[in-house]
Amino acid sequence: MPNISQKGRLMPSSPIRKLVPYAEEAYKAGKTVYHLNIGQPDIKTPQIALDAVKTHSLDIIAYTRSEGSEAYRNKIANYYKTNDISVNSNDIIVTTGGSEALLFAFGSVMDIDDEIIIPEPFYANYNGFSTASGVNVVPVISKIEDNFALPPIEEFEKLITPKTKAILICNPGNPTGYLYSKEEIRKLANIVKKYNLFLIADEVYREFAYDGHTHHSILQEDDIKEHAIVIDSVSKRYSMCGARIGYLVSKNKELISTALKFAQARLSPPTLAQIASEAALDTPQSYFDNVITDYVSRRDTLINELEKIEGVTVAKPNGAFYCIAELPIKNADRFAQWLLESFDIDNETVMVAPAGGFYSTPGMGLNQIRIAYVLNEDSLVKAVNILKQALKVYND
Amino acid sequence: MPNISQKGRLMPSSPIRKLVPYAEEAYKAGKTVYHLNIGQPDIKTPQIALDAVKTHSLDIIAYTRSEGSEAYRNKIANYYKTNDISVNSNDIIVTTGGSEALLFAFGSVMDIDDEIIIPEPFYANYNGFSTASGVNVVPVISKIEDNFALPPIEEFEKLITPKTKAILICNPGNPTGYLYSKEEIRKLANIVKKYNLFLIADEVYREFAYDGHTHHSILQEDDIKEHAIVIDSVSKRYSMCGARIGYLVSKNKELISTALKFAQARLSPPTLAQIASEAALDTPQSYFDNVITDYVSRRDTLINELEKIEGVTVAKPNGAFYCIAELPIKNADRFAQWLLESFDIDNETVMVAPAGGFYSTPGMGLNQIRIAYVLNEDSLVKAVNILKQALKVYND
Repeated sequence: MPNISQKGRLMPSSPIRKLVPYAEEAYKAGKTVYHLNIGQPDIKTPQIALDAVKTHSLDIIAYTRSEGSEAYRNKIANYYKTNDISVNSNDIIVTTGGSEALLFAFGSVMDIDDEIIIPEPFYANYNGFSTASGVNVVPVISKIEDNFALPPIEEFEKLITPKTKAILICNPGNPTGYLYSKEEIRKLANIVKKYNLFLIADEVYREFAYDGHTHHSILQEDDIKEHAIVIDSVSKRYSMCGARIGYLVSKNKELISTALKFAQARLSPPTLAQIASEAALDTPQSYFDNVITDYVSRRDTLINELEKIEGVTVAKPNGAFYCIAELPIKNADRFAQWLLESFDIDNETVMVAPAGGFYSTPGMGLNQIRIAYVLNEDSLVKAVNILKQALKVYND
Repeated sequence: MPNISQKGRLMPSSPIRKLVPYAEEAYKAGKTVYHLNIGQPDIKTPQIALDAVKTHSLDIIAYTRSEGSEAYRNKIANYYKTNDISVNSNDIIVTTGGSEALLFAFGSVMDIDDEIIIPEPFYANYNGFSTASGVNVVPVISKIEDNFALPPIEEFEKLITPKTKAILICNPGNPTGYLYSKEEIRKLANIVKKYNLFLIADEVYREFAYDGHTHHSILQEDDIKEHAIVIDSVSKRYSMCGARIGYLVSKNKELISTALKFAQARLSPPTLAQIASEAALDTPQSYFDNVITDYVSRRDTLINELEKIEGVTVAKPNGAFYCIAELPIKNADRFAQWLLESFDIDNETVMVAPAGGFYSTPGMGLNQIRIAYVLNEDSLVKAVNILKQALKVYND
């Protein structure tokens, strides 16, 4: 039997995947499982996007340009302008989800064994894209007691080597919910200029900024326009994760022409999803207002309920729809499995995402979980209560 | 300004891309351009697939499973069974086009600097996927005078080194139109067994087999089930290139579980396109019968007309919808540009794909072009006549 590659063996599994069989057993046993683990919002996709697909007039589902259709990219540029980000259609490549934009960015700026510095905890799939690209993640630890703010810039500086090619942030953060301030972005801008690095910002949660804070994009820092690469996506913005439409955005023309070669090799982003996504750009502001109101209310409920539990520490997120909670347990993987296998209240239990998978430093975050507040408030209250009762009887 | 990666610099541009500005100039000058260069069929997508999208009842365009929805994969397995290929849903990963299936296969079986042997001329984007994956293409030359049949197996054997991990074929071939016989597949099966290699077959043109020939899949060779990886796609089969739905298929469980980790990192293939593609599986046989009749008729017209031109050699394809023609010229890149810039008959000209981009051996195929017969017959006749008249006056 021929051998699998070393790269294939090193590819990480999804941190939640190994819990799926236990969740399936719980369903079979007739239990209700509240999913605090998933990033698939329950918010409806804007009707205008759903309708655009229903009323399409294609008779051939043909390729579009590799960088996405001209009409769509013009509308995207306009979207950025209304967000005080000055880019034009030539600075944008439409990708198959933010995932593909990350792969194109990694391939365009890093070679084998190059290094990318990422504050951890970070979106677990950054590990997968790094392994697939043959590059190494160098983590900088951000701390729950600081709400996962940007670590001191000296911590980044200590880690820079000749192999360092980029710094990657997620703003606001999955899994932390932390929204970087303008000052924090400025510190990152200075360091990438000083060391001639790329700054890649995953800004897919841009709209989800709460409590009067506004999102500050790396593209708003004029002096790093040759360094800045934004990863974007329609997935969370319009609750259309399954569309698989994202963008790579940069004012660096050499970067765009390089990423375009990766895009040309795979020919075209999905055509039907571009139709839906282009229409989604006309979503009325009221949709977002409602969504933000919902998320803020859910977040407040969630944090309030979590803070009532003895021994639980929770970072207060002001963006995205995740938070990290530290529990009075030793190992969240075992706890998450136990919740599904052995615990219920009136036949109801919860599934949580152990946070270890969001760190690349071994042993970090073992007593933490990520909670996605993408459930309605009644369910959230019930789910947190289950967690509370479970912690009372769990001993490990 | 930070540096682009070496990988990014090495990524090949699409061989047709550099002609696009000349085509655009021709349009601006009011010329009609017959596109013999493109692989986007003019055949309509089956109505059943178009309608499935129009009548969708989603209110959230959500992720599906990373390996594709269970219902869809079950129907795909059934499709294979009706093609005498015995696989089940667990052997199938739904990908974002055949392109992504190739990337997953390359990542799962090869590490940096590993080698993959491919008969050339081959689909140009295999070069891009190899560069993106950090692996090296080792070409074996197949010849126009043999109709691009499988080169002698000893030619493969000579090239096998400890770094060789796989052989890749496209069957029937883009750009050659050659359909491998059962005997040729058997020879490949023997060699991958002997040297413990993977055999990757891009079978996206499976249905396009003419003149009473039937397609023989590598999955029909029982003794190489641990070696065989099929790349498949709905793009050409149902004329829905823009859907971006493909499959990776293998009976090798370790390979599938490895490729699944790459799939999990990017979360999900496109949901709307899966709806269209699942419906497309119910396309009536009459659709394919009509399409095949059209293509055979177009091919016959094309080959007949090409053979009338003095100094032109053309391989007779019995599959797919491409053929390679050798012209009495020195450099097809210059000729293709000249056709767009400087030649027309009654304001009409043609765009062809220079074949050099389909070879990885430098200097090969410089006097060859690839013609895609995806135009109606009247246009084909006109286009070949333009080619004929052009060759009379062209001197280089």
